[in-house]
Amino acid sequence: MVSKALSKYVQSLHQKKYRQRHGAFLVEGGKSVLELLSSDLETEHVLVTAEFASQNRAQLPERLALVIATEYELTQLGTLATNNTALAVARLPQEKALSPTLPQSGLLLALDEVRDPGNLGTLLRLADWYGLPGVVLSPGCADPYSPKTVSATMGAFARVQLWERDLTAWLPTLAPGTGIFGADLEGDNVHRLTLRPSGVLVMGSESHGLTPAVEGCLTRRLHIPRGTSGGAESLNVAISAAILLDNFFRNQ
Amino acid sequence: MVSKALSKYVQSLHQKKYRQRHGAFLVEGGKSVLELLSSDLETEHVLVTAEFASQNRAQLPERLALVIATEYELTQLGTLATNNTALAVARLPQEKALSPTLPQSGLLLALDEVRDPGNLGTLLRLADWYGLPGVVLSPGCADPYSPKTVSATMGAFARVQLWERDLTAWLPTLAPGTGIFGADLEGDNVHRLTLRPSGVLVMGSESHGLTPAVEGCLTRRLHIPRGTSGGAESLNVAISAAILLDNFFRNQ
Repeated sequence: MVSKALSKYVQSLHQKKYRQRHGAFLVEGGKSVLELLSSDLETEHVLVTAEFASQNRAQLPERLALVIATEYELTQLGTLATNNTALAVARLPQEKALSPTLPQSGLLLALDEVRDPGNLGTLLRLADWYGLPGVVLSPGCADPYSPKTVSATMGAFARVQLWERDLTAWLPTLAPGTGIFGADLEGDNVHRLTLRPSGVLVMGSESHGLTPAVEGCLTRRLHIPRGTSGGAESLNVAISAAILLDNFFRNQ
Repeated sequence: MVSKALSKYVQSLHQKKYRQRHGAFLVEGGKSVLELLSSDLETEHVLVTAEFASQNRAQLPERLALVIATEYELTQLGTLATNNTALAVARLPQEKALSPTLPQSGLLLALDEVRDPGNLGTLLRLADWYGLPGVVLSPGCADPYSPKTVSATMGAFARVQLWERDLTAWLPTLAPGTGIFGADLEGDNVHRLTLRPSGVLVMGSESHGLTPAVEGCLTRRLHIPRGTSGGAESLNVAISAAILLDNFFRNQ
C-alpha cells in the first residue's frame, strides 16, 4: 500500500523543478533499481511488487523501508508504459571536484547542448562501457536525472560521474597541452590517426553540431569516414561518439 | 483543403495492416518528404503547408497533385507531435532480387528480431552512411515502413535496399566462403583483426542478442573491447553495429 504523501512525492519527481527542490530523482524498472542499490548512490525509497521482492530478496536490503505495491500502483506512479517490478527514489549525487588536470589521465566526454534524453542516456551508457572518468554537460543539455534519460542509461546513471559546466568557460581552464577533440566533416580522418584515451571529446547537439564558441576551443577536429557510396549526410550524435570512442580506445 | 477520402487513407497508413493492403506508406516532415521526392521511390500524394510549398517550389514537381494543407491538418493526419511542413504517401518498393553472391562484393547488414522502430531506423541510417548494398530483415523485426522507423532513418528509407528473409533459411544459401559475422562477448577482439567490407554482419535483438539458430550460422564472432574500467554490461544494438561497421570500413 503506497501512502498518499509518498505517491504525491514520487509523482512530483517527474518534473525537473521538483527533482531540484527535493534533491532526488526517480529510478524505474527492476534492473535499474538493482543497479541503484548496488551503487554508491543514496536511496530514499524502494517500491516493489511482491513478486519482484520475493525474487530479489538478497539484493533488497532489510533496512530499507521497502514498500510493496501493485503493478497498477507502480505504473501510476512512474513514467513507464507498465512497471511490474520496482521503482525507487534516489538522492541526487553531490558533484565532485573537477580537477583541470583530470583529462590528462583519461578521456572525458563533454556534451554541448545534447537535448534529447534518449541520446543523452545512450551517451552515458557509452561513457560507462569505456569507463570514462566522467561526462561534462553544458547547461543546455537534457536533464541527466529525467526518468527518460535514467532509463536510457540502462544502469549507467549509477556509475558515471557528471559535471555541469559552461563549456566555453571550462575548456580554456584545462592544463595547456590537453587535447580537445570534436567531430567535424572537414576534420582529420580518424582511421589515419593513433588516438589515445586522454583529453576531452566534445560532442555537439543533434541538429546543430557544436556551438561556434565551443568549436573554437578544439585543438583537433576528427572526421569519421563515410562509405565510398554512402548517402546519409550525418550520423546520430551517440553513434558518432561510439565510433570516435572506439578509435580512442583501440590503441590502449 | 484535404478531402475526407484522402484523410481516411492517410490515417489508415499508421497501421501496418493497411500499409500492406494499400502497398503504401507515410513519409512525414519536410526533410524526409524532400528525400522521398529526390529518390527512385514512387510518390502517390504530397501534402504541404503553403509556407513549405513557397520555400521549396523547385523541389516540388508541378505534375504531382500537391495538396495544400494547414499545420493543424498535417498534424492531425500524421503521427508527429506537430508538422508544419509536409507529409507524403509513397508506394512500398518492390523487393529486388537478392543474389547469393551479393555479399562477396559488399557487406550486407542482417537484423535478427530488432523490434524497436527507433533502433531499426538508426541502423538503416548507418547502412546508408556506409553505402551498404542493403539490409536483410528477419520477419520478427520492426516494420521498416512504420512512421517511427521512417522518421528515425533521417531520409535513409529512400535509399537503402531492404529484403525480408528468414535468416536461418537464407544464410546457408550464401556462396561458400562468405564471411558471416556477429557480435559476441566471447568473440575475437575487432581491434586485432583486419576486417574488409564483404560478407554479412548479423546483429541481434536489443534484449536477447542473436537467436541460437542464427548464431549457429556465424563463421566469425566479433567482440568490441570494453574500457578496462568500464561498467556497462552491453551496448545498444545500433551503437554496436556502428562500431563494428567502422572496423570493417577502416581498412577499405
